[in-house]
Parts: sequence; structure tokens; C-alpha cells
Amino acid sequence: MNTALIVLAAGRGTRMNSDLPKVLHEIGQSPLLHHAMAAGMALEPERMIVVAGHGAEAVERAASRFDEGIVTVRQESQDGTGHAVQQARAALEGFSGDVIVLYGDTPFIRPDTLEAMLAARARADVVVLGFEAADPGRYGRLVTTGDALDRIVEFKDANEAIRAITLCNSGVIAADRDTLFSLLDRVCNDNASGEYYLTDVVGLAREAGLSAEVVRCDEAETLGINTRAELAAAEAAFQTRIRREVMEDGVTLPAPETVTFARDTAVGRDTVIEPNVVFGPGVTIESGAKIRAFSHLEGCHVSRGATVGPFARLRPGAELAEEVHVGNFVEIKNAQIGTGAKVNHLTYLGDADIGAGSNVGAGTITCNYDGVFKHRTTVGRDAFIGSNTMLVAPVTLGDGAMTATGTVVTHNVPAGDMAVGRTKQTNKPGFATRFFDKLRAAKAAKSKDN
Amino acid sequence: MNTALIVLAAGRGTRMNSDLPKVLHEIGQSPLLHHAMAAGMALEPERMIVVAGHGAEAVERAASRFDEGIVTVRQESQDGTGHAVQQARAALEGFSGDVIVLYGDTPFIRPDTLEAMLAARARADVVVLGFEAADPGRYGRLVTTGDALDRIVEFKDANEAIRAITLCNSGVIAADRDTLFSLLDRVCNDNASGEYYLTDVVGLAREAGLSAEVVRCDEAETLGINTRAELAAAEAAFQTRIRREVMEDGVTLPAPETVTFARDTAVGRDTVIEPNVVFGPGVTIESGAKIRAFSHLEGCHVSRGATVGPFARLRPGAELAEEVHVGNFVEIKNAQIGTGAKVNHLTYLGDADIGAGSNVGAGTITCNYDGVFKHRTTVGRDAFIGSNTMLVAPVTLGDGAMTATGTVVTHNVPAGDMAVGRTKQTNKPGFATRFFDKLRAAKAAKSKDN
Amino acid sequence: MNTALIVLAAGRGTRMNSDLPKVLHEIGQSPLLHHAMAAGMALEPERMIVVAGHGAEAVERAASRFDEGIVTVRQESQDGTGHAVQQARAALEGFSGDVIVLYGDTPFIRPDTLEAMLAARARADVVVLGFEAADPGRYGRLVTTGDALDRIVEFKDANEAIRAITLCNSGVIAADRDTLFSLLDRVCNDNASGEYYLTDVVGLAREAGLSAEVVRCDEAETLGINTRAELAAAEAAFQTRIRREVMEDGVTLPAPETVTFARDTAVGRDTVIEPNVVFGPGVTIESGAKIRAFSHLEGCHVSRGATVGPFARLRPGAELAEEVHVGNFVEIKNAQIGTGAKVNHLTYLGDADIGAGSNVGAGTITCNYDGVFKHRTTVGRDAFIGSNTMLVAPVTLGDGAMTATGTVVTHNVPAGDMAVGRTKQTNKPGFATRFFDKLRAAKAAKSKDN
Repeated sequence: MNTALIVLAAGRGTRMNSDLPKVLHEIGQSPLLHHAMAAGMALEPERMIVVAGHGAEAVERAASRFDEGIVTVRQESQDGTGHAVQQARAALEGFSGDVIVLYGDTPFIRPDTLEAMLAARARADVVVLGFEAADPGRYGRLVTTGDALDRIVEFKDANEAIRAITLCNSGVIAADRDTLFSLLDRVCNDNASGEYYLTDVVGLAREAGLSAEVVRCDEAETLGINTRAELAAAEAAFQTRIRREVMEDGVTLPAPETVTFARDTAVGRDTVIEPNVVFGPGVTIESGAKIRAFSHLEGCHVSRGATVGPFARLRPGAELAEEVHVGNFVEIKNAQIGTGAKVNHLTYLGDADIGAGSNVGAGTITCNYDGVFKHRTTVGRDAFIGSNTMLVAPVTLGDGAMTATGTVVTHNVPAGDMAVGRTKQTNKPGFATRFFDKLRAAKAAKSKDN
Repeated sequence: MNTALIVLAAGRGTRMNSDLPKVLHEIGQSPLLHHAMAAGMALEPERMIVVAGHGAEAVERAASRFDEGIVTVRQESQDGTGHAVQQARAALEGFSGDVIVLYGDTPFIRPDTLEAMLAARARADVVVLGFEAADPGRYGRLVTTGDALDRIVEFKDANEAIRAITLCNSGVIAADRDTLFSLLDRVCNDNASGEYYLTDVVGLAREAGLSAEVVRCDEAETLGINTRAELAAAEAAFQTRIRREVMEDGVTLPAPETVTFARDTAVGRDTVIEPNVVFGPGVTIESGAKIRAFSHLEGCHVSRGATVGPFARLRPGAELAEEVHVGNFVEIKNAQIGTGAKVNHLTYLGDADIGAGSNVGAGTITCNYDGVFKHRTTVGRDAFIGSNTMLVAPVTLGDGAMTATGTVVTHNVPAGDMAVGRTKQTNKPGFATRFFDKLRAAKAAKSKDN
Repeated sequence: MNTALIVLAAGRGTRMNSDLPKVLHEIGQSPLLHHAMAAGMALEPERMIVVAGHGAEAVERAASRFDEGIVTVRQESQDGTGHAVQQARAALEGFSGDVIVLYGDTPFIRPDTLEAMLAARARADVVVLGFEAADPGRYGRLVTTGDALDRIVEFKDANEAIRAITLCNSGVIAADRDTLFSLLDRVCNDNASGEYYLTDVVGLAREAGLSAEVVRCDEAETLGINTRAELAAAEAAFQTRIRREVMEDGVTLPAPETVTFARDTAVGRDTVIEPNVVFGPGVTIESGAKIRAFSHLEGCHVSRGATVGPFARLRPGAELAEEVHVGNFVEIKNAQIGTGAKVNHLTYLGDADIGAGSNVGAGTITCNYDGVFKHRTTVGRDAFIGSNTMLVAPVTLGDGAMTATGTVVTHNVPAGDMAVGRTKQTNKPGFATRFFDKLRAAKAAKSKDN
């Protein structure tokens, strides 16, 4: 059976107190919208339609960034979830099969759960996702006979007996395309808020003699985000899950609660991640590596047996080969560091290739930016870059080349040669003594004046 | 009605195990004393008297630092709270009105609560602040009829029925000045510890036919600090409250529990504060800024759209204009950075002005200290400071000026000029090969000898 | 009475999902094995035997690292705890006295508890360590009459009444050497897993008319580590205990949950440790020091009144005298820093002695490594090292010496002299303007081509 997904992403999220549309706030450094889309994509749907409204342009860009093939439609006025789904009607022209309606601010729904809803469609015309609520509060209640869904009762319309029900409505719904839209056409907005509710299709289906069924999921899956505090709580739940998974995969985290992962962080077995490490998107780490405290990694690769930090920053495009050592106060960006090379202190390597076995001295800087263009630095194998060497790119150093401490390297250094560019030291006898005597006298005179 | 406050700050705090007087230990980077004083100051009192004792000089300095107009008096011997309040008598000469007695080690009391006590004074001669204790333990119990306070019973004097009472005495008390001191004159020290207890004024008032009333507050407000562990717990409570408020104001904190705020941190809407950020006192951040992980800010201002960190340190007097970028391993102190300027790597800017649109290369250092005096560096708009430039202050660079990598700038650079000061690189053929051959031979010889 | 200890450390720890033997995973930066050995060592045993199996070589090395006198034996096949203890028989030849069997993956057992077991040996032939389990689950149950141990019943063999017992078997056992091994000789492996169980000696002892007694300990002491998540939980428990102890000793930790200690960290009274600090092994800090946020310390000493950080790294052999200031992005290794000296920004000092009162400018680097050997840098008292000075070791600077900013110091500087080595700055009029005009034109041309 073909499947299509509609992701509702038009809401403003007033309680977020933000100019950013709610679905673009992030968990694990990905927008909420991407989390919901990723769950839906796992079904390999024939079509996915994102309904944008508030901040529509930004939402549409984010949807395309996730997948260029996504169709986005606009809900120009905020007239309820039923109205939002109607906006996707044209985009489903020519599609025949099941439609699932998801929410862009509900990031934790699991693909398994959506699969279970599709499976239930074999038995019922309309399938609704429900959950046992720890505190049912003002959620709509699902009145059921076994898995058969008799009706959905909004909290305000519920009597005591109905309110005692703890099985609640998540809002996620599945139905055949034709069924869904024919039911939606009959939904009215004669209610207090004057909105068209998607939920009403269940009652209309039952009136029309169609069957409805509930599929149950864990309450945590249906968690919607409405405030920054809820966003932080969702992030914490997300991190707790990833940390547990990473540990199960054989990674040592002495202080898991101090390590922040991105959605796609991949870490190999027997790697140790010390306290206070932050992973941005796109990081892969092989087995047996060590990420020391206070390190920050984004878009980079760390090979087997390499050591990073403490106080290291790997930016996008940093690729460390096996047994590389990157030490403190070192930044590496868009650079390949060869097997066993060492970059131990106070260094910036950007747009560079460093050969295997090379040693990069403290205070080395690749001067990769001339104010307009970026240029590349290439260093061969087993080179020795003296402390405080400036590598003015584009520049190439051969295998086993060396630079003298404090040299500004502006042209290439052949293999085995040493580049040197510095003024010989001279000592000025007694200068320091006279200099400080003068300064202190000036200070004394000054304080006398005051 | 005029109001005066007496803040008791004479205690030693033995259980803190510290040379520092207890009230000078800090929460949110302010002494406990300042928190209590701030709550009292919200009433705009005519006078505030701080009673110092242990470490009196340090306490007096701290009180004056909070407000130069504060009167401090000394309690030379630790003879109880009643005796402590008596020391403030002379300082209240000529004052007529209500007096509230507060405690310098009780930082969380709310101004609203003190207002409620003053309001209750319209109905009763003596007003006592009480709280419902989750675990009443050894607190004094308040025996009441409605809000009327009949008496205070110390735990050790209480029978079972009294001990079952959960309304407890906070020790905070309000009364008319004359009433307070005439009652205090009758307080005796014929008890086990030989001290004069402020609490005894309630019994004496009732005996004298005066009325007493209780005002209730949340137990959290009355939290006193007695150990370092309690100090840490109070700090945690304080941070939790600020983090919640900051999020309600529309700031994104993906990991709020890893961000440490000061009492006065101000953060604009839609700013993102990544994990592991520490704020010292005096930081203001406008809207839409981004403070990246592992950043440390004190006494600085960050404007709209600016980005800071990761691994950045802004020290007092750092002022970043809009869209400024400050990157990793960068320290900025007493310096103004103009709109859109970039300071991205391994740099120290102290006592400097950097013009809008300028680019400060990696490894740049303002040499602002000659061993005795500090001097200022000024850089114009759209300047390009090459990597590893030393700016030996005082020095000025004009608009659009440039420095060559590795230059030590000791005199001014006119607009549009380039400063250069370096030795041309030469390559010594085969030097590196011979050098390392020799060293390795020496090493081999050495290890043979052993 | 003589005592010997057998530490079982042969297990693979399949659920750790690791190539590292389980007992070598770390808590507080020491292997689990060392924790167990340290508890046993507190008894000053005549002998300690470690039984290695999986990863035996690594385990043996770790045992020797703890104490060179340790005897290690191998269990070549994993045939149960009874079989493991048998492997220690030869190593106990000639020993007469009590033997306690411990587990290398049970790091929290207290010396007091082991003392209590030895004391109980005066009353009983075999002593077993038991604990009241909050959730007895599948632990073996101890059937007792008072402290007398009647028998141990494995969970799978237990009826309902036995399963209701909450006193469980820790596996730790004490007996006279001869008794232990004569009982072990009778242990069979006719059970489901075909293993020899140490536990069976209790039943055999009772059959032989010997007495057995249980000693009770806290469940937390018997915590064994089986997964990375359990390892992280154990680390958290360990850190919580140390943080509490450190605070009781009079140290201020505003955010204790963000500070990571090692097993041997020693911190003096009235020292403040700000949030986000990591201690490796071997750190001692005197009273009244300040360790600021984002600092990382290993194998170093910080004296009274010194300040470290934020963003400082002290590596092994760093010794800071009183009132030293170490600032941000500074790394110090194997270096002594004299009283009141300042090393405030972006510096690497390795293998160095810095005299009292000296000021080390920003960007200073000790070039201590020539690619093969390490060399030492010596700086006298009250010296002034200008910014971006390269100290090419071996090199010595006298008292009150000075270096000009940007100097590469390759030979000694006498007291009171100034070393200078740099090219004079020249300004090239209009160069910057023309340079950027050209670059921008090139960029414009390039983007036109595309």
C-alpha cells in the first residue's frame, strides 16, 4: 500500500516567546521539524507534504534542507488542524493510498509506531494514535471497546465517567486519502474557537458507519513542545537516550550527563569520552580513541587510537588519522592530519594537509585567509614545524622539512630543508634595569602629583 | 510609615569550616549578605543597619560595597540575637517607625514577604514570619489562633501536642522601634546557653497585653546557610530559578543545568546559550546573539546578532557591537569591538578599540602592559591585522590599514598603509635532514651508554 | 593473625562490550582493580594474590603498577570462582592464617568491613559478607540464625519462603587457609553451567560440622560493575562522596556536580573551585587558592593564594608557588612557577623554572623539544618576558632580565639585560588599499566567469 505523510508545521508557538517558528527550534541540534520528518521518512512514503504557516519561508527552507523532494504548502490563516490538512489536498492529487497526519512540534514519535498504525488500517477505516497519560489533564479522551475506537470526547465536553478515562488522543491519525478528505469536507467550525478540528473526522466516520481503531504508544512519544522549558526537557530526554545507547555500544562515559551529543554522532567501541565534551552535527569517531575533557567537535572524523584535547576544537572538515594527537588550545578546520602526527599546543590549522609523523610546534598558525580568498597549506611526512611558525598559504613543505622557531613561511620548503626567517637575538646590557627604573620613577612622580 | 531594617551578620558560621565570615560566602557570585540586603532595600527603608561581629571589618567593607550609606555597628561578644539587635539601638536614635530584623545568612527572603509583614503591623504590635515546615525538626513552633500568634515554643520546651505543629518560626520579626527596644530591655539570658533571644520579645509582648500576628511565607524563603553543602544546595536553587526565568524570557538553553548565571545577568530574546557557559557579574546580552559552548563572560556587553565562542573569554569592559564574531581561545578585556568585526582565533585584545568590519588574525596580541603602566591600542574600520601581529601599545592603526603576518607594530600605521617587520625566509638545503640525523645519532649513542 | 587476600580478576565482562578486561575500566581515574586492592591493602596483608584470566597480561601489569610486590596467578579456563581461588593455592604455599577472597570488579568495599570479617573469624570457621538488598532479585539468599549462617541458597533453588529473605550473598568470604582449600577440594561442578562455585564451601563446611557466620555491610559496598551504564553510575556515586567530603573539609564548590575529582585529589580549606573543573590523579591544592571555571589539572601542586584559570591546564610536574596567577589558554607542564609570578594568557611553559615575581607575557612559548630531546628553560626573579617571546631551550635568563616582544631567545640573557631580536617595522604607504582593491577585483572577475 502506498503511503503519504502530512506534517503540520504552521503553528506560531506563542508560548515559545520567539521570532523563530516553533518547529524550527532545535533538539540535538536539529529542528523539531526534522525529527518529525525523519520518523515519517522511515516509512519510505511516496509523498511527504509539510504545511507551513507562521514563518512559512523559513519553515519551507528547513523542509527542503531535510530533503529537496519535499512538497510544502501554505496555510494562510490559522483555522485549525482540519483546515491545515485541507491545504495538502492539492498536493495529494493523483495519490492513492494511506495518509498519516503528523505534527512538526512532536519530535519523538517512533517509526515503529507509525508502522503499527498502517498495520491497523487493514482492520479499520480510521486509525488514531492514543496513549495512557500519567496525568490526563485536559487531553481529549478516547472511548474504546478493546482496540475499537467509539468516539473522541474533548475534555470540556466530558462528564466525570469520561474524564476518568486515561487513554488520551495524540492527534496523530491515519486513513485512506479519499476517506480522509471526504470526512474533512464535512467538518464544521461551529465551536468556541471557530476552528476546523481534524479530530472531528472520527465522529463523522463513526456516524457514517465506518470503523475506527486506536493504536497505543508510550506517552513520551507524543510529547509536544510549547515552551523553552519544555524544549530543554525534551533535549534532556533526547540526550539521556543517546548517552545510554552510546554506552551500550561499548563507549566509556565517566560523566555521561556532561556530554552533549548531536542526532548523528557515531562513536566506536572502547573509545573514552571524558567529562564536558560537546558534539555538533556530523561527527564520527572510530574505536579506541580518546576525547578528553572540554573538547568541542563538529563535522569531523577521528580515527582509531587518536587523542583529542583537553581544550581542543575540531571544526567541519577536520580529519584525524590513526594515533594523531591533538592537544590543548588547538583549532583544526578543513584539514587532514596524517597518521601519528602531533599538534599539541596553541595552534590553528585551517585548510591544510599535514603528513604522517609530522610534529607541529606550539603557536603554529596557518594564515589561510588573505582578506578575500582562502588558501591551502600542505606539509609532507615527518616534518618538524618549529614553534610560532606562520604558514602563509598557499604554501607547501616537503617530507622531513623543518622550520625554525618564529619563521614566517611565505614560499615553499623543499624536502629535508630548513626554512628560517628571523633576526638574530642581541642582548642590550643593563637595558632592562634602566627601563624599569625609569618607569617606576615615572609612576612614583605620577602618584605624587595626585 | 517609615521603615528601618536591621540585618544580623555577626555570626561565625562554625560549620562552614572557614576563615571567611559566613555572610560573605557567595551565591550567584554575590555575598549572602548582599542578597538579604537587596530584599530589604526593595522596601526603600529610611535606614539600614548591619550588625557585624566575627570578621567585622570584612563584613563592614562588604556592606559599604553594597551601598555606601549603610550604617554598620559591631556586636563585640556573641550574646544572642536579642543582644545583637540591641547594638543597633544607637544607630536608630531619632528614627520613628517600624523596624524589621533580617538575617545576613538567609538570602532568599522575598520583598513581597517583607511588605506583607509591614501590612500586618497595621493589625498587630509584633509581627513574626512563619513557615509550614516539611520537616519541622527542632525549629521553634508557632502557637496560633488564625493569624493571631499566641506564643513561640522552643522545641526543647515543647510537649507532643506542640511538636505536632508544623508552623515554625523563621526568626524574622517586625515591630515599632519603641515597642521593640522596650521589649528587648526585658529579655533575660537565664537559659542554658546564657544568650539573649530576640524571639523572647513575643512572649513579653503578649504578657504586656500587646497583640502578635504571624505572616506566612514559603519555607524556601527562610532557608539559612550553615554548611558548604547547604551553600551549594542554595546556589543550585538560585540557578534553577534564574534559568527558568531566562527561558521564560525567550532565551534558548539546550542544557540549562550546565549554564551558570550571576544575580544580574540580562539576556535578550531569541539568544541561544549553548551548554557549559559561565556568567560572572555584570553581563548584558542583546537579542538574537549566540553564546557558544565553553564560554566565560564577566562585566561585558554583547550586542544583537553577535557570536561568542566556543572557548571565548570576555572580561570586564569587553563590548561587542552587532554581528561581531569572537572565536576560540580568544580573550577580550576592556575593549570595544566594532560592528561586524571578527576576532576568531588565539588572540588577546586588552585595552583596545577595534573598528567596524576589521579582521583580527589568529595569534594577535595587544601588548598593553609595559611592566608598570597599561596602554591603549586603537584600530580603525575595515583594517586587516595579519596573523601573529603584536600591537605594542600605545599605538594606532588607521582605517583600512593592514599588518603583515608576524609584524611587531611599535609605531602608528596610517590608513591604507601596510606595516611590515619581518626577516625574509631563506631555506637551508638539507639542513633538516642533517640536523635530525645528528640528533638521532646522539640519542642512539646515549642509550648505548646506559 | 596473618592475613592474605585473593582478588579475583579473571572475568571477561561480556556486558561491558569492550576489549579491555572488566577490572581495568576506571572509576575516579583508577582501575576498578586498584579500588578493590586498596581496600584489601588497608589490612596490611602478608600476601595479596591477583587471579588474572581474560586480558591477563594487562591485568598483571595493572596489579604491579599498584604495588610491585603483588603476586599474580593465571586462571587459564573460566571454570568458576572456586576454580579461580584454587589457582592461588601455590602462591599461598608456606602461608598460614586467614584468607579473604575479594572481587576486582567490586570497587566500593570498605576496609572496616573486611576488618569486621576478620574479627568474626574468631567466632566462626567460615565468614561470609552479606547485605540487605533493596531488591533481592536473583541474588543468593543467606539463611541465618542470628549471625550464624546456616546455608546459602541460590535463587533458582529457593522456594517462596527462602525467596522472601532479603539478606543476600556478596560472594566475599573469609576462612583459614587450610580450611578454605580443604573445603574447595570437595567442591563439585555438577551444575548447569559446569562451574566450581566458591559459595559451595559454606554448605560443605556446615556438613563437616564447621561453623559459619555472616557479617553485614551496606548494599552500596557490594556493588559490582557489569555494564558501562553501571560504571557511569558507580563513578557518579564515587564523585558524590568525594564532593561531600571536600565540602566538609571547608572547600567552596558553587556547582559541585560539575567538578570531577580523582581518587587522590587533596584540596585545602577556603579554596574555591568554580564550576566545570576536572582533576586528574595526583593534584594537591593548598588553602585559599582559587581554581576558576574550565580548568584541567593533573599531577600538579597549587600553593596558598594562587589563582588558576579560567581555561588553564596544569599538567604533571606543574608546581605553582604562593600567589601565582595562571590565566586563560595557558598550559604548564613540569615547571616550577615562583611566588607571585604571572602567566596570564596564551602561553605554553614546559620543562621550565620561572623565578618569583616574574611576568610572562601573552603568547610566550618554551620551545623545549628539538624533535628528539627535551630541554629546560630557566628564568630568574622579577624578569619581564615580552609578548610572543620564544624561549628556545636550553636557555637561561637572569634576574630582572627582559625580552622584547616577538624575540626568539636562543642564547642566555644576563641579569638586567634585555634580549631583542626583531626586524624594525616599516609602513608601506597605500599598500593595503591597493592590495585589497586587487583581490576584490580578482574575486569579482572570478564570480563573473562562473
